[in-house]
Amino acid sequence: MADEAAVREQAEVVRRLKQDKAEPDEIAKEVAKLLEMKAQLGGDEGKHKFVLKTPKGTRDYGPKQMAIRERVFSAIITCFKRHGAEVIDTPVFELKETLTGKYGEDSKLIYDLKDQGGELLSLRYDLTVPFARYLAMNKITNIKRYHIAKVYRRDNPAMTRGRYREFYQCRPIAVPLLFLLVNDRRILDGMFAVCGVPDSKFRTICSSVDKLDKMPWEEVRSEMVGEKGLSPEAADRIGEYVQLHGGMELIEQLLQDPKLSQNKLAKEGLGDMKLLFEYLTLFGITGKISFDLSLARGLDYYTGVIYEAVLLQQENDHGEESVSVGSVAGGGRYDGLVGMFDPKGRKVPCVGVSIGIERLFSILEQRLEASEEKIRTTETQVLVASAQKKLLEERLKLISELWDAGIKAEVLYKKNPKLLNQLQYCEDTGIPLVAIVGEQELKDGVVKLRVVATREEVNIRRESLVEEIRRRTNQL
Amino acid sequence: MADEAAVREQAEVVRRLKQDKAEPDEIAKEVAKLLEMKAQLGGDEGKHKFVLKTPKGTRDYGPKQMAIRERVFSAIITCFKRHGAEVIDTPVFELKETLTGKYGEDSKLIYDLKDQGGELLSLRYDLTVPFARYLAMNKITNIKRYHIAKVYRRDNPAMTRGRYREFYQCRPIAVPLLFLLVNDRRILDGMFAVCGVPDSKFRTICSSVDKLDKMPWEEVRSEMVGEKGLSPEAADRIGEYVQLHGGMELIEQLLQDPKLSQNKLAKEGLGDMKLLFEYLTLFGITGKISFDLSLARGLDYYTGVIYEAVLLQQENDHGEESVSVGSVAGGGRYDGLVGMFDPKGRKVPCVGVSIGIERLFSILEQRLEASEEKIRTTETQVLVASAQKKLLEERLKLISELWDAGIKAEVLYKKNPKLLNQLQYCEDTGIPLVAIVGEQELKDGVVKLRVVATREEVNIRRESLVEEIRRRTNQL
Repeated sequence: MADEAAVREQAEVVRRLKQDKAEPDEIAKEVAKLLEMKAQLGGDEGKHKFVLKTPKGTRDYGPKQMAIRERVFSAIITCFKRHGAEVIDTPVFELKETLTGKYGEDSKLIYDLKDQGGELLSLRYDLTVPFARYLAMNKITNIKRYHIAKVYRRDNPAMTRGRYREFYQCRPIAVPLLFLLVNDRRILDGMFAVCGVPDSKFRTICSSVDKLDKMPWEEVRSEMVGEKGLSPEAADRIGEYVQLHGGMELIEQLLQDPKLSQNKLAKEGLGDMKLLFEYLTLFGITGKISFDLSLARGLDYYTGVIYEAVLLQQENDHGEESVSVGSVAGGGRYDGLVGMFDPKGRKVPCVGVSIGIERLFSILEQRLEASEEKIRTTETQVLVASAQKKLLEERLKLISELWDAGIKAEVLYKKNPKLLNQLQYCEDTGIPLVAIVGEQELKDGVVKLRVVATREEVNIRRESLVEEIRRRTNQL
Repeated sequence: MADEAAVREQAEVVRRLKQDKAEPDEIAKEVAKLLEMKAQLGGDEGKHKFVLKTPKGTRDYGPKQMAIRERVFSAIITCFKRHGAEVIDTPVFELKETLTGKYGEDSKLIYDLKDQGGELLSLRYDLTVPFARYLAMNKITNIKRYHIAKVYRRDNPAMTRGRYREFYQCRPIAVPLLFLLVNDRRILDGMFAVCGVPDSKFRTICSSVDKLDKMPWEEVRSEMVGEKGLSPEAADRIGEYVQLHGGMELIEQLLQDPKLSQNKLAKEGLGDMKLLFEYLTLFGITGKISFDLSLARGLDYYTGVIYEAVLLQQENDHGEESVSVGSVAGGGRYDGLVGMFDPKGRKVPCVGVSIGIERLFSILEQRLEASEEKIRTTETQVLVASAQKKLLEERLKLISELWDAGIKAEVLYKKNPKLLNQLQYCEDTGIPLVAIVGEQELKDGVVKLRVVATREEVNIRRESLVEEIRRRTNQL
């Protein structure tokens, strides 16, 4: 059944194909589909069916996904806090002009809000530009902060691989994660200069180099020469450099390089790279980090060191399938961005990293699905149950006592639930203990405490129940 | 200096004044201001100055505000978890048609996204409608969840009183908070029927009743009779009812009321209200709750019990100023909303509450400002410092050891910081301990641990340092 939203979506597919100059056959096929959908909609005389979905490129998080998300966040936040970072937050939308001119070609992916009178607004595209606006507005020159929030891009979603239109960014101080590639924009620019790339072509050639993680050198070279008009000699000289990667010995080698060592920018970059590797040696983590001359990073605003965390191929428990997600974090130094917001252009040097949380979610979700591990979505310690009928009031009295003592407790919302159903609820949701009230227990001033896993049952005096539950759930 | 955004904002001010039929003088004043701004902008020949601000009705959260926000959230989440609630999340925008027809007159306050091809989208206006969409989409009939997220309303902001255009909603199961008012839509509808209000006027008369917390009965009555065409007799009958409030005895009295007891809806509502008060008695919280016949709640989707938490007047430590913020939470039962999304119209009964987090923030912020309490924005346990120059490497080695052991530690990002500056940093940021390395300490295999508050200094063997820091910061 076609509906208006689906037709608009299909129209967008066609528009994008045309824009990307796709195969005429493919375009024709999608146009035919669009026309058919429009006809269907017309036949329905404008009365359209309701679509029950989230917007394209977005998802809901159910309790299970949220439990996974909280695990990932908690691991990351613990790390930030260990390094003394503060946390900030900014609005989900900014004045449109705040975002204007910050993202180059990617600006077309920004979500604008409809002009409903008042200010013109756009949804944030990343957390970096709002952060720079925040610094300039509050005249802050010194802060170590993290920011976990969703950002919005009108991109082609690839949801199974963790690529969404609404997704989390998580901008902290640098956190080493898995395997790190590192480079410096000044080394790249110096390299372009000594290879004979004209100044005007620096950025476009840089974006060709950025594709080396997905394309072989030969293809990148032919793009440089064919599409971008670089001389074959210059391209070959670049080719020699960008295949280099290593550690301190490579830095020393390049500092001696007859051409690079003559270039002021490259020398500065290499000097700082050397210092960085000295610190990394102190931290004992050089084994996880590679200085890689092919690392370029897409965004324009970087001015110094740049880095990317790469997730190496993962295999599941059975060793059958493998997941490759490539880059899961990236960032660098951007010394010019805050100055773009400051009326007097005062610069504030910044360095940051953005973690691709959604990709990490995807991986963790897939792994947990493959494993037998059961994910709890609540933290309930005990279910208050009854063995006989007519004990609703007694259940409520007992749970009220437990809640007041800070115990996480639940009760079934039924007047006379069967004991079997109450026990089954614990099995399903992973509640470890059941506190059972019955007529005999009430007479004796005790509560029967049942351990769900072992089916063990013990009578506990009512005044000792809170302590006993805490002891058994290790939440003293 | 006028800029485009400011001019647009001013134009909106004028438009709203006209819409609200404000005083001609006031309109004229604002129009003059608008014209002046436009002239300034024109004189600038289109080249507009950059405005450094967040969109109207929104705010950044700096580290201090975030620390307060985390306190409030943590208190609320702890309560939700104690009652076994799960957590979910939904996208910040929905298909426009998902929100259409759910908010009555308030629909004009919804933020739409610009039509950039593809689906038509709107920012969520509350968390209730997305939740109902989530339930219908996933065919869920049974869930106890909370959802903490920002919602968006193009309202007239009143930021000092905690009213924003971007603000948090927090929808959990019911949490008693301060003083609660409770009523039932069926009791209200039954009351309108027996007072002689025509069916067609139920909603508009209900929204007049809703104003009783801000207006005296005489004004509400004259709105009912004058603007809404209700007979004076009907209004007077309503007036008698809506001034009633109490507990179990009032419920019993109304169950005997010769008119109300004849109305099926009112009888149902009163029966359930009686049951509710029986449970509240079991929980021992009837003292905090009042059955109040004037409570009406604005939104259309409620079908049964409704409630509102009211913050009573607060005084600061000196008893000089007072803060009155009125309602800080509200909610009720809405049995029809999920069915609006289900293709077969299957109903899923729901009950929820929304907490006005921003108002609670405002109050807590004001209180903390008035008090002497210093708010820490990090959790750093120790600063790694040096007493002499040339010890950067030793500082980095030590902090690396501490980080690896899970200690929250910081180091100043300077080559040779003065000891005084390092100690001052601890004073400023509230770091309780300093671990000082010096040449003598390095020789002796110890670290000097200084307690910032007492200036006490002790030498600790390096291998015992982690344990000592944990002991002294109670984070064993």
